[in-house]
Amino acid sequence: MSTAAPTATRTGGPWSPDEFTGRLRAVPAERYHDRHPFNVRMHEGTLEPGELRRWIINRFHYQRHIPVKDALILAKFDDSSLRRSWLRRIQDHDGLVEGEGGIERWLRLGEAAGIDRARLRSGTEVLPGVRLAVDGYVNFCRLGSPLEAVAASLTELAAPGIMRTRIEAFELHYRWIAADGLSYFRDRIGQGGRDSEEALALVIAWATTRREQEAAVAALRFKCDVLWSLLDAIDHGPAGERP
Amino acid sequence: MSTAAPTATRTGGPWSPDEFTGRLRAVPAERYHDRHPFNVRMHEGTLEPGELRRWIINRFHYQRHIPVKDALILAKFDDSSLRRSWLRRIQDHDGLVEGEGGIERWLRLGEAAGIDRARLRSGTEVLPGVRLAVDGYVNFCRLGSPLEAVAASLTELAAPGIMRTRIEAFELHYRWIAADGLSYFRDRIGQGGRDSEEALALVIAWATTRREQEAAVAALRFKCDVLWSLLDAIDHGPAGERP
Repeated sequence: MSTAAPTATRTGGPWSPDEFTGRLRAVPAERYHDRHPFNVRMHEGTLEPGELRRWIINRFHYQRHIPVKDALILAKFDDSSLRRSWLRRIQDHDGLVEGEGGIERWLRLGEAAGIDRARLRSGTEVLPGVRLAVDGYVNFCRLGSPLEAVAASLTELAAPGIMRTRIEAFELHYRWIAADGLSYFRDRIGQGGRDSEEALALVIAWATTRREQEAAVAALRFKCDVLWSLLDAIDHGPAGERP
Repeated sequence: MSTAAPTATRTGGPWSPDEFTGRLRAVPAERYHDRHPFNVRMHEGTLEPGELRRWIINRFHYQRHIPVKDALILAKFDDSSLRRSWLRRIQDHDGLVEGEGGIERWLRLGEAAGIDRARLRSGTEVLPGVRLAVDGYVNFCRLGSPLEAVAASLTELAAPGIMRTRIEAFELHYRWIAADGLSYFRDRIGQGGRDSEEALALVIAWATTRREQEAAVAALRFKCDVLWSLLDAIDHGPAGERP
């Protein structure tokens, strides 16, 4: 985490593209939710089935809001070619036709883990802390600058790595979940890499002052905090049902 | 325009789907901008080239914001199939690839009328009243309910008709504009009919109380006012340059 005092950083000129990129990449390296104790336990294989189901149910609340935040980001762009490019993210999650897309694949993950679609869609088991974190992220994308909203998406820089680890962990430790339930994770490896390279190029092009660069780094830290807070709430579980 | 007092209408139960549809269709029949003096002159063929160019330049400010308002509407939907369907409207204007889409076709209309792309894109000639009307519409879609935002789009019920009349008028009266500049109007005949049928079905399904039905009618009246105000500003022209 940054040790420079705000007054010191604000007086400097813009970082070089390489230094700026390095500072952006350092954020998920330090704060990404793969380090969260709940995720560590997930990948170690020590989650109980009920804990894994709780994660699938609560993380779905995040997943179903991805196209919403991406539509809010798209609405900030005044250029057809940029919107056309960002629109693909909405299609990745909603699918081009019924029965496709990331949300559908998450529903299948739920089914593979014994959670039927109606239960997952209902949202009745979504924890208050998860709702707050997701609302916070959607509102950040609604109200922030285009630069901040795009920079927040840069957690995708770390997504392909966590997806590969997760697939291995599930195949090794959670064999009670059918392998074809993992297609969401598989598809995100390629999509996350492509999306994060695109977003990184935009952020580097748009943030031309030190202040803008710092705002981009802060947005990415915020997004890491959102993902971390999700796992805090999931790890603790419902009030009155602490393990 | 409705003659019923608010207190009287609020005490009634919901209108039948037929009556509700009739009241919605009555709004553009009464208030659509095809009745505006400037549009009447346009279709009569009495606009000067400078007036027609002023309309193309200012109306482009509206056109380029259509995908923005549609993204804001899309962000209100919590259902993949509904978002997938609405997303097509964004694609209609931005195109599936570079060089396609309604915004591109409007740029070609400008070129056919002697306005180069850079001039049209710059927005420097957009009138204050046009900016206010477009901002008002985008913010209505940003802040209103899904029902209101979708109902406001129902001016499309009248769009195919005005497009047909416009194409005939341009071909007859404004032959200095090359015919292939009119492709935007041609494409909107089919798109407008399809979009308005889809939106009408949603509005009828969603507005189940009289209060909601009245809100939908009010949203459509508001949208007619937006389009009317655009033409007011265009008709008057820049301050200090009144014809």
